[in-house]
Amino acid sequence: MQLPKVLDLAAIRSLYAGDGGTPHELIAAVGERIDAADPAIFITRTPAAMLTAAIDALLVRAPEPNSLPLWGVPCAVKDNIDVAGLPTTCACPDFARNPEHDAAVVARLVAAGAIVVGKTNLDQFATGLNGTRSPYGAPRCVFDRNYISGGSSSGSAVAVASGLASFALGTDTAGSGRVPAMINNIVGIKPTPGLISNRGMVPACESLDCVSIFAISVSDGAVVRRVAEGYDAADPWSRRVTPSPLPRTGMRVGVLARAEREFLGHEEHAALYDEAIQNTGAEIVEIDYAPFREVAALLYDGPWVAERQAALDELGVPAAAVEPTVARVLAGAARFSAVDSFKAFHRLEQLRRVCEAQLASADVLLLPTAPCGFTVEAMLAEPMARNSELGLYTNFCNLLGLAALAVPAGFTRAGLAFGVTLVGPAFSDEALGALAHRLHLLAASGSGIDRRFVPPPLPASTATDRIEIAVVGAHLSGMPLNHELQALDAQLVGRGRTTEDYRLFVLPDTQPRKPGLTRSPGGGGSSIELEIWSLSAAAFGRFVSAIRSPLGIGKVKLASGGEVDGFLCEAWAVEHAREITELGGWRAFCALA
Amino acid sequence: MQLPKVLDLAAIRSLYAGDGGTPHELIAAVGERIDAADPAIFITRTPAAMLTAAIDALLVRAPEPNSLPLWGVPCAVKDNIDVAGLPTTCACPDFARNPEHDAAVVARLVAAGAIVVGKTNLDQFATGLNGTRSPYGAPRCVFDRNYISGGSSSGSAVAVASGLASFALGTDTAGSGRVPAMINNIVGIKPTPGLISNRGMVPACESLDCVSIFAISVSDGAVVRRVAEGYDAADPWSRRVTPSPLPRTGMRVGVLARAEREFLGHEEHAALYDEAIQNTGAEIVEIDYAPFREVAALLYDGPWVAERQAALDELGVPAAAVEPTVARVLAGAARFSAVDSFKAFHRLEQLRRVCEAQLASADVLLLPTAPCGFTVEAMLAEPMARNSELGLYTNFCNLLGLAALAVPAGFTRAGLAFGVTLVGPAFSDEALGALAHRLHLLAASGSGIDRRFVPPPLPASTATDRIEIAVVGAHLSGMPLNHELQALDAQLVGRGRTTEDYRLFVLPDTQPRKPGLTRSPGGGGSSIELEIWSLSAAAFGRFVSAIRSPLGIGKVKLASGGEVDGFLCEAWAVEHAREITELGGWRAFCALA
Repeated sequence: MQLPKVLDLAAIRSLYAGDGGTPHELIAAVGERIDAADPAIFITRTPAAMLTAAIDALLVRAPEPNSLPLWGVPCAVKDNIDVAGLPTTCACPDFARNPEHDAAVVARLVAAGAIVVGKTNLDQFATGLNGTRSPYGAPRCVFDRNYISGGSSSGSAVAVASGLASFALGTDTAGSGRVPAMINNIVGIKPTPGLISNRGMVPACESLDCVSIFAISVSDGAVVRRVAEGYDAADPWSRRVTPSPLPRTGMRVGVLARAEREFLGHEEHAALYDEAIQNTGAEIVEIDYAPFREVAALLYDGPWVAERQAALDELGVPAAAVEPTVARVLAGAARFSAVDSFKAFHRLEQLRRVCEAQLASADVLLLPTAPCGFTVEAMLAEPMARNSELGLYTNFCNLLGLAALAVPAGFTRAGLAFGVTLVGPAFSDEALGALAHRLHLLAASGSGIDRRFVPPPLPASTATDRIEIAVVGAHLSGMPLNHELQALDAQLVGRGRTTEDYRLFVLPDTQPRKPGLTRSPGGGGSSIELEIWSLSAAAFGRFVSAIRSPLGIGKVKLASGGEVDGFLCEAWAVEHAREITELGGWRAFCALA
Repeated sequence: MQLPKVLDLAAIRSLYAGDGGTPHELIAAVGERIDAADPAIFITRTPAAMLTAAIDALLVRAPEPNSLPLWGVPCAVKDNIDVAGLPTTCACPDFARNPEHDAAVVARLVAAGAIVVGKTNLDQFATGLNGTRSPYGAPRCVFDRNYISGGSSSGSAVAVASGLASFALGTDTAGSGRVPAMINNIVGIKPTPGLISNRGMVPACESLDCVSIFAISVSDGAVVRRVAEGYDAADPWSRRVTPSPLPRTGMRVGVLARAEREFLGHEEHAALYDEAIQNTGAEIVEIDYAPFREVAALLYDGPWVAERQAALDELGVPAAAVEPTVARVLAGAARFSAVDSFKAFHRLEQLRRVCEAQLASADVLLLPTAPCGFTVEAMLAEPMARNSELGLYTNFCNLLGLAALAVPAGFTRAGLAFGVTLVGPAFSDEALGALAHRLHLLAASGSGIDRRFVPPPLPASTATDRIEIAVVGAHLSGMPLNHELQALDAQLVGRGRTTEDYRLFVLPDTQPRKPGLTRSPGGGGSSIELEIWSLSAAAFGRFVSAIRSPLGIGKVKLASGGEVDGFLCEAWAVEHAREITELGGWRAFCALA
């Protein structure tokens, strides 16, 4: 079977459709490719018999090709996440154990049809951002073997980028799911902490660890994430999700001020960051990065290193079994007392508020994923300093509970990949996809080693429990009752107009002044300006219940097609009211009055 | 001026109303009462000139008696909460400092009319549950001076119980706002962490501290809490509130299994607990208290003691300035490393899940507030052991982020007070009031030293958990779409009619057939039959969102008075529709058709 350079989901589906390659053939072809690849990428390959059994089981329960979201899709799993039947080493041979069960996330992926082809190399115990801290060797950047792959999810990123798997699981505490995505020109999804269950993942820094996803495109990543995510009562860190929407229009993107842009002398990377900013097509807001940098410093210079040591204690890993650079990192744990820990937690809570204020000025942040990559030689010469530099723009995310999505953002003339990361509020994972896809597409970087790959459009968004409401008067942004929506945690998701058959009136005797909207399909109407806000069902219910007569909520038809819940007025109340339909909206009336 | 035994809000309001005592007179009378009381209750009295200035300022900005929720109401403030112009000592003379600003919560209370009469004694740095750990002396139980007052908010509880203040602020980390409420027969509100701002409170165990409220009744406490609560962006621990409702009917109350009921040999207390359980009138569920006990043990035997030490370090309190028993407690901090801290946090997250599972089987927990009180002599003989016993049923709440409300629950034959505490989910603070009031009322314990006091009914609730909707057509009982309401757990709460000015039409082309209701105040209307159903806010939101054009939800006026959310129809849709107003309702039309 002839495989494409990279194994995106559409390619896999088309191989299975029509003339009908079988999963046995495809997985065998992938196996041959892995045979020929750098042995440092995988720590353990799935044995042939186990692959055959997995495929046979899939064919029994879902015989129809492509009848599951990940039907027969080859995937790789970072070797700190359990796959039943394969050892989990965390890149520490003395630690190796044989799990009886798949990790919760692996079980979900397998149930959706995925075939695990092997366990990938990593910086030992996921401690590092560079990919050189493993006794199983250092995977290399797919574009230049002199360069590091990035880490700690080194093998997973390289496997996806070089067409050895369609997607791969990594983990991300400080940036391990994003830095190697940039260096190898692929998409890295760092979900909101708690979105994907950590059960069956060996903890690195337990309160901050996330399972992450490497994929060929934002679209592929979204398909995998939707399968992977879900509340798990057996994982203490799992969280119930209230999806956080982002504005579909009028997005404000926060970027680094010029003085804050540190690329360690790489001018081309600086220019590519500028290009990505232009590509957003959005309103650009410069944010103050200093508080985020201080949060990041807490993670690397503060007591959280003791959380890593606590994990190794709990796992019973002897100090002598630990890789030398990782051991050097962990040695820092002894410096910190419980008193120090609490002081750092208190400082974090203070910084959280400062960062929240910065985040309030933008809907998402757009940051370089890392300032640059490094040669393996440079990395090994100063492993601590170089590692910290790799995390310059990633470290703060999990301490603040944010979602992040890393996408390719162009190449240097020397052929090294650059990338940018969108950072959004907790549970904006789904909502980040639209802008991330746009950036990937406009960067024209291809994906992984296939620089001509064109990222496919996003899959239709999954339903959320949020309800959208159109407002046309005193609840518009900046108007006197807008605070009522804000108090209910409503979010502006769009600006638009009604169809051409609505009439707008000034309601008499209202305080603050309010308009009344009625539909008039018989004629005399026009298109009226509106905003669309999104609320939870409960907040929407409370909001509707607080509306006073003669206003109410019905369906309002949109010029852009479709309809949405929105304010309407009882007809009797506007019989003698002043009509302002011809002004096209309440703002125009307020500007006149 | 003749003061009542206890200074409940209704008494204060009636002193100010009608024949008109002035705040100057009332506060002077309170002052005389404080003069005659135990000097251990207050650490600092508000100087006369400052009281006069505060009252004058109130009279300037709100001259009308009772024109603010706490107009001229005397209150006391625990001396670890800042009041501008009075020193904050935390019961540590060497710590004393002179704050420039009121704590955020004090500023809110003063803005609502409250007059601070002084700063009350406490277990030093709020470290203790007993009231004996202060160089300013030990306040005593208002019923027997041989007994401890409970603590750490000792002076605040005694002040309210003995009629020296209408309400008082305490703080509560492990039970300091509840244990002394029980011992002195008053209400203690331990809000959900983050509900009331901690800004201007000296931290004890910063991640767990709550400002608490002592009051004469649940009703008074609710009035004070509503003034006190509110998001504060300048306090890193403040949280935005989504009120958590509780069922109004069919409440399930979780209680201790018989084997878990530890009253340290006090049979009368055990019987009073049983009586309180009976008084709920609710479905009783025995819960497994073991995981809650383990959470509590984490607080006392785990690294959180280091959080107390961190606070003192940050405050610059020298070890030599610390009260001997408090110093003994704090000495435990040195035992814990950062690694220990993280291990304890991980254990807490695991236990949180176990406790959540227990909490899911009940809507609220009903627990003894404390197993019993102790004599001062017994307390001082074994200060650590006795203190731990006092916290047996309170310690776990803040680690789990829960709301709690302590109410009186009867007396022993020897005249010592017992109390019970309702524990509810985060932000159920308002919702806990109804059952708490019932228990206080049925216990017939009076309040504080006034054993004949009858707790007044609760003020109208601000947190409406259910929303009512009027239906007039296909959603009526027995009609084709009624199942949509049933599926959302809606309940039929009434049958009635609209006012005389509504018109009803048969909507063309609907399946199943539906009517359209419009209001017509200009004439031509009649009174239309309706049913009223009640739904949760979220269910109501989903129901509204599923309604299709031209129907919507507005306010429908009821013949019985008032209005309710209900179905209305856009006017354009009934222009050519068959009118059936004269039939008086949809059922009559269906019977004909």
